[in-house]
Amino acid sequence: MTPAKTSGKEKKARLDFGLLPNLVGYHLRMAQIAIFRDFAQGPGRHEVTPGLFGVLVIIEANPDLKQSDLARATHLDRSTVVTVIDNLERRGLVERRAALNDRRSNAIRLTAEGAALLRKLKREVNQHEKRLLQNFSDAERGQFFELLQKVFPEHR
Amino acid sequence: MTPAKTSGKEKKARLDFGLLPNLVGYHLRMAQIAIFRDFAQGPGRHEVTPGLFGVLVIIEANPDLKQSDLARATHLDRSTVVTVIDNLERRGLVERRAALNDRRSNAIRLTAEGAALLRKLKREVNQHEKRLLQNFSDAERGQFFELLQKVFPEHR
Repeated sequence: MTPAKTSGKEKKARLDFGLLPNLVGYHLRMAQIAIFRDFAQGPGRHEVTPGLFGVLVIIEANPDLKQSDLARATHLDRSTVVTVIDNLERRGLVERRAALNDRRSNAIRLTAEGAALLRKLKREVNQHEKRLLQNFSDAERGQFFELLQKVFPEHR
Repeated sequence: MTPAKTSGKEKKARLDFGLLPNLVGYHLRMAQIAIFRDFAQGPGRHEVTPGLFGVLVIIEANPDLKQSDLARATHLDRSTVVTVIDNLERRGLVERRAALNDRRSNAIRLTAEGAALLRKLKREVNQHEKRLLQNFSDAERGQFFELLQKVFPEHR
């Protein structure tokens, strides 16, 4: 064995991953972990996860959104949504008002500060997406979109 | 608006997801969430996450594995690996022995109980993978594998 073969990279390559490389679920999870890590170094520097970015986008796109609708859109349970919105409110990024036609429920909106942060985040998410897709041709990009949406479409 | 249009499904369809549907990172996250949910209802009933299943497979495939190698293989930091192994040891699924050539480091192995659970898990993961890929042709399955591995291959 030559010294070059004892580098960390080579040691890793010699580990046996068993059946994992045959599982699409494994490759998807590995892709997801790598994406999360890249996101953390870009948009994530503003203390925003991919999930929280999605929440902000949906709030912006649906002014006076109800918490129950947000829960449905994000696949979060209602108590988690309440915690998430509490947090965003504390950070001054969203505000709750009593809904016009239903005083029991709240309407959520971005504040000016929330809208400004979201503009910044969108630019960084755009760059993150470009890094994510840097090894893809245009055709492959389209295929990837289609195939990802074939995974449990009934759960969306 | 007819009564049929006010179903939960229709309400959800009317929400605006903004730029999210244009982001491959969003679709990958949605696929991952759906996969995690399906896993939880199958192999996950044995109190095992996809990540923990991967750990068990790697331990089985590499008898007397070192914790540092397991950390590298799973992209977990070393202290997390220690916690994970502590947990598996408490459940009687793995055992640590002093490594033959390095008394400071531990060699990890599955116990008979761990091996038996893993056999069961593999059957259930197989069924989970079939559900995951139920909408895929053979060609699409192959494409999906290839494309997933184009996502940040440098981070693997």
